[in-house]
Amino acid sequence: MSHPLFDRHRETLEAAVAATRARGYWSAYPEMPSGRIYGESAKADGQAAFQARLEKPFEIDQPGTVGQVGAEESPYGTTLGITYPQADLAVLLPAARQAMRGWAAAEPEARVGVCIEILDRINKRSFEMAGAVMMTTGQGFMMAFQAGGPHAQDRGLEAIAYAWEEMTRVPRQVTWEKKVSKTDVARLEKRFHLVPRGVAVVVGCSTFPTWNGYPGLFASLATGNAVVVKPHPGSILPLAITVEIAREVLREHGFEADVVTLAADAHDAPITKELVTRPEVGIVDYTGSSEFGTWVEQNATQAVVFTEKAGVNAIILDSVDDLKAVTGNIAFTVSLYSGQMCTTSQNIFISKDGVDTAEGHKSFDDVAGAIVKAVNWLLGDARRGAEILGAIQNERTLQRIDQAAGEGAEVLREASPVENEQFPDARVRSPLILKVDHSQQNLYMREMFGPIVYIVATQGTDQSIELTAKAARELGALTCSVYSTDPDVLRRAEDAVIEAGVPVSCNLTGQVFVNQSAAFSDFHVSGANPSGNATFCDAAFVATRFRVVQSRVQVPVEAQAPEAETHAGV
Amino acid sequence: MSHPLFDRHRETLEAAVAATRARGYWSAYPEMPSGRIYGESAKADGQAAFQARLEKPFEIDQPGTVGQVGAEESPYGTTLGITYPQADLAVLLPAARQAMRGWAAAEPEARVGVCIEILDRINKRSFEMAGAVMMTTGQGFMMAFQAGGPHAQDRGLEAIAYAWEEMTRVPRQVTWEKKVSKTDVARLEKRFHLVPRGVAVVVGCSTFPTWNGYPGLFASLATGNAVVVKPHPGSILPLAITVEIAREVLREHGFEADVVTLAADAHDAPITKELVTRPEVGIVDYTGSSEFGTWVEQNATQAVVFTEKAGVNAIILDSVDDLKAVTGNIAFTVSLYSGQMCTTSQNIFISKDGVDTAEGHKSFDDVAGAIVKAVNWLLGDARRGAEILGAIQNERTLQRIDQAAGEGAEVLREASPVENEQFPDARVRSPLILKVDHSQQNLYMREMFGPIVYIVATQGTDQSIELTAKAARELGALTCSVYSTDPDVLRRAEDAVIEAGVPVSCNLTGQVFVNQSAAFSDFHVSGANPSGNATFCDAAFVATRFRVVQSRVQVPVEAQAPEAETHAGV
Repeated sequence: MSHPLFDRHRETLEAAVAATRARGYWSAYPEMPSGRIYGESAKADGQAAFQARLEKPFEIDQPGTVGQVGAEESPYGTTLGITYPQADLAVLLPAARQAMRGWAAAEPEARVGVCIEILDRINKRSFEMAGAVMMTTGQGFMMAFQAGGPHAQDRGLEAIAYAWEEMTRVPRQVTWEKKVSKTDVARLEKRFHLVPRGVAVVVGCSTFPTWNGYPGLFASLATGNAVVVKPHPGSILPLAITVEIAREVLREHGFEADVVTLAADAHDAPITKELVTRPEVGIVDYTGSSEFGTWVEQNATQAVVFTEKAGVNAIILDSVDDLKAVTGNIAFTVSLYSGQMCTTSQNIFISKDGVDTAEGHKSFDDVAGAIVKAVNWLLGDARRGAEILGAIQNERTLQRIDQAAGEGAEVLREASPVENEQFPDARVRSPLILKVDHSQQNLYMREMFGPIVYIVATQGTDQSIELTAKAARELGALTCSVYSTDPDVLRRAEDAVIEAGVPVSCNLTGQVFVNQSAAFSDFHVSGANPSGNATFCDAAFVATRFRVVQSRVQVPVEAQAPEAETHAGV
Repeated sequence: MSHPLFDRHRETLEAAVAATRARGYWSAYPEMPSGRIYGESAKADGQAAFQARLEKPFEIDQPGTVGQVGAEESPYGTTLGITYPQADLAVLLPAARQAMRGWAAAEPEARVGVCIEILDRINKRSFEMAGAVMMTTGQGFMMAFQAGGPHAQDRGLEAIAYAWEEMTRVPRQVTWEKKVSKTDVARLEKRFHLVPRGVAVVVGCSTFPTWNGYPGLFASLATGNAVVVKPHPGSILPLAITVEIAREVLREHGFEADVVTLAADAHDAPITKELVTRPEVGIVDYTGSSEFGTWVEQNATQAVVFTEKAGVNAIILDSVDDLKAVTGNIAFTVSLYSGQMCTTSQNIFISKDGVDTAEGHKSFDDVAGAIVKAVNWLLGDARRGAEILGAIQNERTLQRIDQAAGEGAEVLREASPVENEQFPDARVRSPLILKVDHSQQNLYMREMFGPIVYIVATQGTDQSIELTAKAARELGALTCSVYSTDPDVLRRAEDAVIEAGVPVSCNLTGQVFVNQSAAFSDFHVSGANPSGNATFCDAAFVATRFRVVQSRVQVPVEAQAPEAETHAGV
């Protein structure tokens, strides 16, 4: 069985499947916001489309709408003025389950074709999406385009590739024959049916609504589930546009649009707890805070739950060749999007005795000073600084910065605002850099989300490694960066940190950063420590979203004489 | 990397992997208890080995032993008199975690080789195992040999095959190159490490300790986890022997024996709740009652939980060619092991208007009578009857039979004991067959484990289908058997029952029975209704037992002139 959309996207699918196995660099959707690629008018068209969304209701013709909800405020200092359908879950969820029946009955080719077509249309609207992501999350434009657009689309395609492989792993039908006596053979015709797990809920986050939302959305959708998308109230628009496009493609190809629906809510009337524990819900994908994610894991026990939570990420600085290249890389990592990535490093562990470099030994304070200097240089150009930092998504992050600065740690660099010419009212802060002793675990051995960096003086690299692994085991960690010119130190650090379930990056300088994770090659969140129980993407991320249920029909076999033994096995 | 045990068992592994994909008939371990296959002295040796276990402590030199526990009573009317190490979990679990480190660090080849070697040795001791399974579970000898021996070993091998495929799906290392500017290429050497999820616990059941225990045991073990085996207090010996063999093989090949340990307990001092919720535990495999299984799902939220629970299985009798062949097949299904299989049919739905057969129309009472007659014939030969029925594992099943007989339903056949010559004190009952109306849902719409059969008069086959699907959705179901000569009825039944997540068997006569499930072809428990959340075996059953955690190291790249562009992707 095939499907026109499957045929249209078959090459992309096959290349994606190959990429998940090869795990070298590969991407389906161009990351450069270039007119040559996306069309000369794409940028202007996208900006206009985004502007046209503002100050009006976002219409979605889904069942159970009982009002309008939504009050997104841009971190860039404007309000969006958009409202979205407010859903009666007691109507929406049964409707989603009903819509799921036809979708579940479709062949995998049809579902995979529709899913890639949805991504393809989202890709064509990457400039509109960039506006929506930028103005709700506070990301700079380039990051909003890349991470909110093509990189998120790649992550969605990666999930579809895994779903395709899993769904086609079992034959659709087979003849089973067993010799049951000297003269008799039993023969069964077996058919294997894919049955989706149930209505899936995607709980989005406020910082990377599409990048973190697409893997679960497309993994569930491709495997035959209906999906209810529950955006963070601070960043609804990117996922609302996604839902709109998905419904459009579904409807065009003969499926019920309610296979994908939106369940928006407001900060002061959250619906997530009710939604994820409803009996119709068989799958939950969650991205967000550790505290709430753990609540979901412990309470949505009727569903299979995939979480991407938070953690305390570390840099271990042991020894380097080129200190300037290293501090430049670190400065970008801690500044990018004001440290609001779940992969951003929080703690930089350096021996109190300092660091060997190719230019000789540097003291702890020399190295800490070099990091501060590198951040100051990077953000010294106001236009570049504003683009790198973006804006602070959540008001509470500002309070956290003030709290951290006032707890007695030595302030090496203040979180001074950087002027944003384009958006003078933007909520901007630059990295607060603090110096602490390893004994001050009350300060650095906790998650302090945002542009807050602790440079921790340890008794040596062995203790740096130990503290990194301890934080990962107890609090979770998504990344770890290690700098050493000694292969033995690298190996020891790698062993300890990998055992704690943390992906390790070694000696990064130049244009690759520890907080970046590339689809088809890097696994995002290991699932092996408290930072989450799932990974983007592996087989485990899709395999439980559907079940294989078989039918077997006995078919007649001519009785055979004993001498004509047909061995059908042992 | 390879390993001598991997080389020894490579052909078996490769054939097993191929079988999981082809899903025709295949088996690695011969199911016939034949001297030609297992050795002429194997039966006598195995019986002697079993006898030698009785009336003494079962020694396992594992840490944290604080006493002896165990009081297995055979359903055949004897006591075993064996005690097992009683474990202090606060010592045993940390020891298991410690032992896991070396095991986790081994290459997949070494682990898979060791696992298949363990199965191979268990296979050679299938007669000893048959004695242990028979005398603790109450199965007849042939079933104890097959289901407790080779069939269980096949299920274990199936899990290992899936584990091998998942572990080798990602390359161990790869070079990643991306063009990051007109002149620069970033190059990372990436390595992918397999990290086990944590200490695994296997909670065994009293009826099929090895068949239901081996998939989880070997899936966890192959993927690098330490495994603590927690047998049902009514059937400890088969899993204790398994643990003994596993420890022997591990130790011989340089691994710590504590990678596999035993945590036995007593009926009056159960430890399962404490065990499965301990922080060291990352995986739980559970087989047993629905009530306790649901407790595990809801409370062991620190772990990934795989459950095989119970359900209400149905036969839908619409129309048949050969009524005698059909009732003969049904009689065997409901009699085998006194209906103590989680796959045994409980409810037989027949239209009140009767059934068309090749010999003309038969009334409801004719058909019900034919089923009773077939059971009476099958069990009429006392020796055959005793072998088929085995004995009743749990005293409470006897009470349940009495309860069912006394609730006002018309008794078509009493659960009269069948004499067991070899074991005169055996706890034996034959199927109680009751006639009820579809309106008496309080009687048949509940799980009544044991030799209890309700023949339900429905308003027609459509209602039979509806009631079957309803029971599956609400109470779970592991099997469904449908008899019809009308392809349209078969299709309607199949659609409805598959949607409720129940594997369907159609028109079984002869030597294949609905309660049998063949490794490498049939998925046991769908995971798609309340009868359990996992399947023996699919990728989902193994993929979450370990994680891939990566390291990436930046390596130097010569800067290139713009004209020498190296495209490493888009």
